[in-house]
Amino acid sequence: MEAARGAPFEARLGANELSFGPSPVAIAAMQAELSDIWKYGIPDNAPLVAALAAHHGIDPACITVGEGIDGLLGTLVRLYVDQGDAVVTSAGSYPTFNYHVAGFGGVLHTVAYDGDHEDPMALIDTARTVGAKLVYLSNPNNPMGSVHSAQVVQDMIAAVPEGCLMVLDEAYTEFAPEQTRPPLDPSDRRVIRFRTFSKAYGMAGARIGYGISHPDVATSFDKVRNHFGVNRIALAGAVAALSDHAYLGATLKTVAAGRARLAQIAQDNGLTPLPSATNFVTMDCGRDGDYARALLAALARRGVFVRMPGIAPLDRCIRVSVGLPAEIAVFAERLPLALGDLA
Amino acid sequence: MEAARGAPFEARLGANELSFGPSPVAIAAMQAELSDIWKYGIPDNAPLVAALAAHHGIDPACITVGEGIDGLLGTLVRLYVDQGDAVVTSAGSYPTFNYHVAGFGGVLHTVAYDGDHEDPMALIDTARTVGAKLVYLSNPNNPMGSVHSAQVVQDMIAAVPEGCLMVLDEAYTEFAPEQTRPPLDPSDRRVIRFRTFSKAYGMAGARIGYGISHPDVATSFDKVRNHFGVNRIALAGAVAALSDHAYLGATLKTVAAGRARLAQIAQDNGLTPLPSATNFVTMDCGRDGDYARALLAALARRGVFVRMPGIAPLDRCIRVSVGLPAEIAVFAERLPLALGDLA
Repeated sequence: MEAARGAPFEARLGANELSFGPSPVAIAAMQAELSDIWKYGIPDNAPLVAALAAHHGIDPACITVGEGIDGLLGTLVRLYVDQGDAVVTSAGSYPTFNYHVAGFGGVLHTVAYDGDHEDPMALIDTARTVGAKLVYLSNPNNPMGSVHSAQVVQDMIAAVPEGCLMVLDEAYTEFAPEQTRPPLDPSDRRVIRFRTFSKAYGMAGARIGYGISHPDVATSFDKVRNHFGVNRIALAGAVAALSDHAYLGATLKTVAAGRARLAQIAQDNGLTPLPSATNFVTMDCGRDGDYARALLAALARRGVFVRMPGIAPLDRCIRVSVGLPAEIAVFAERLPLALGDLA
Repeated sequence: MEAARGAPFEARLGANELSFGPSPVAIAAMQAELSDIWKYGIPDNAPLVAALAAHHGIDPACITVGEGIDGLLGTLVRLYVDQGDAVVTSAGSYPTFNYHVAGFGGVLHTVAYDGDHEDPMALIDTARTVGAKLVYLSNPNNPMGSVHSAQVVQDMIAAVPEGCLMVLDEAYTEFAPEQTRPPLDPSDRRVIRFRTFSKAYGMAGARIGYGISHPDVATSFDKVRNHFGVNRIALAGAVAALSDHAYLGATLKTVAAGRARLAQIAQDNGLTPLPSATNFVTMDCGRDGDYARALLAALARRGVFVRMPGIAPLDRCIRVSVGLPAEIAVFAERLPLALGDLA
C-alpha cells in the first residue's frame, strides 16, 4: 500500500507491528551475527530451542521453530490436511490459516463468533460433526482483540474430538493477562500452541516463531520442513530478545498505555472501543461493513494505515494497532476528519 | 556436526559457503535495515525484483523471489508434482530436490552421470519415457563441480517434452565461465532457472534466492508461497550485494585462486582434482566409497569439515569448498595426516 501511494503512511497502524522495535539486546545480537551471514543456518535451531525450553520449563523435544507462525501453519496444514479433509475455524478469524487450508485442498468449515469472541464449544461441535483434522482458535483473537480465560481454553482442549488437533494461535498472548494462558502441557496430544517473535518481541521482519506440542507432533515437522529455512539473524535475535525480560515488561506497559489512549480516541469520536488483550484496539463504528470500509479508505487518503475484519458482522469495526505516540497523535487528529469525509 | 563435536571445525570446507562473506555494501545495508526489523516484510519483494530485472535485463514479471533455492524448489514441487507423478534427476545430484519430491509424493527416476557430468539427453529421454512433470539439471553441477556449455544446456531445453518443466539449478553459475549460461529467455515456458545469494554473494544464512521463468510460471508461485516469508534483512542485503559488481569480481578471482590451490593440494597427495566451475573442488580418491567415507571421517577427527557425494560411483570423491587461505592451509596440513590414518 505504501508503494502504491508512493510514500510511507504518516501513521502505520494496520499490521499490529511493534513500532517501538525489539530489545536493543536483540538488535545487538543480530548486528553481531551479520559477520556470520555467509554460513548456512543451524538446521535444528538448537540455540533457540534450548532457550525456549529453559524459558518455558519444558522439554526441547516439544518445540518446533519455524519461519513465523505463517510458515509453521503452512507446514502444519501440509502434515495434517489431505485433499478434501475438513478443517474448522471462526468466520472472520485469521485469514492466512484459511489460505493454507485452501492451498492444500482442505475444506474449511466456519463457525460464527459469539459476539466479539470466538465460540470454543461451537468450534468443537462443528469439528466433531464434520470430522475435522484441525480446529483453529486464536487466543487472544485477531481481529477482535478479545480473549478467553485459561479455563475456557482448557475446556476446549479437553473436548477436542479423537483424530482432530487443536491449533491454538497465541501470537498475541504476551500482551494478555496471565490467567488467559492454560499451563503448558506438552504431554497433551490434542493441541499445538503457536507463539511468535513478530508481536511482543518486535521482530516481524525477521520471520521467526515456534510451536509447542507433544514431541510426536513437534517431530513430525522435521519430516517436511525446510531444514535450513530459518535465517541466522532471526535465530540470534530471538535468543537475545527472549533473554531481555525488562524490555518485554516495558513493552507491555507501553502497549497497555497505548491501548487506553486509542480507546479514549475512539470514544471521543463516537466509536466503541472493544476490550483488547493485544497490541491493537478494535473499534465498533456502529454501522455496516460498507461504512467501516469507507472509513478505512478515508483514513488511508489522510495518511493513516489501519485495517479491519473482512467478514460481517465483524466488519462493522476497524482495527488500530498501538503505534508510536506520534502516530497515535496523527490518528487522533485524522480520525475526526475522516469521519467528516463520510458525513 | 560442530555442535556434536563441541567446537567449531578448524577448516569449515564442507558446505560450499563463501567464507569471505558478502560485500561490505551488503553488510551495511543489512545493518541499516535492522532498525526496521519490527516491520513485516514486503510481500511482493518489489525492491529486489526490480533490481534483478534491471541486472538481467528482463521483465520483473519473470522473477520469483523466495527463501533460498531450497524454499523455491519446495514450492515448485508442490505446484507441479501430485501424488505419484514422475520426476527425473541424476543419481547423486542435489539431494534436497529429491527430498521435496518425496515429501509431495512424487516418484523419482534417476539417470546415471556420464562420467563426472550429468547426462542431459539421458535425462530428457527418461523424462519422456516416464512422462515426468519436472526434470532437474544443475549447471554447474553439485557435487561434482562439472559444467556443460550453454549450447548443451540450450539443446536440453529445446528437447524438454510437452507437459514437463526443466528445473535448471544455477546456484553456482556466477563462478562458471560466461559461455556456460544460455541467454535468459523468459518467453520459454519449458524451463525455470534458479539463482541464489547463498554462494557467490556470500549470504547463505540470509535465505534468499530467485527463479527466472515465463511469467505464467513465475506467477503460479504467488498462489501458495508464504507472502511475507522473505526476511527484511535478506531482502535489503540482496539488493545491495547485487549492486556491488567490483566485490563480485574480486570474489570470483579469489575463488579461482583457491580452486587452483586446492587442486594442487589434491595432486600433492595423490588425489585427482576434477575440473570445477564452482567454489569447490571435487577430488577423486581413486578407491571406493568406503575409502572416501573413511577419509571424510579421518579429516573430521582432525578438525576439517568436508563432504562427499552420497551415491556410487560419485562417492569415490570428496568435495572441498574454497575457504579462507588459513583454512586451505589447515586442509593442506591435515590431508596427508588423514590419508596416513587410513594407510
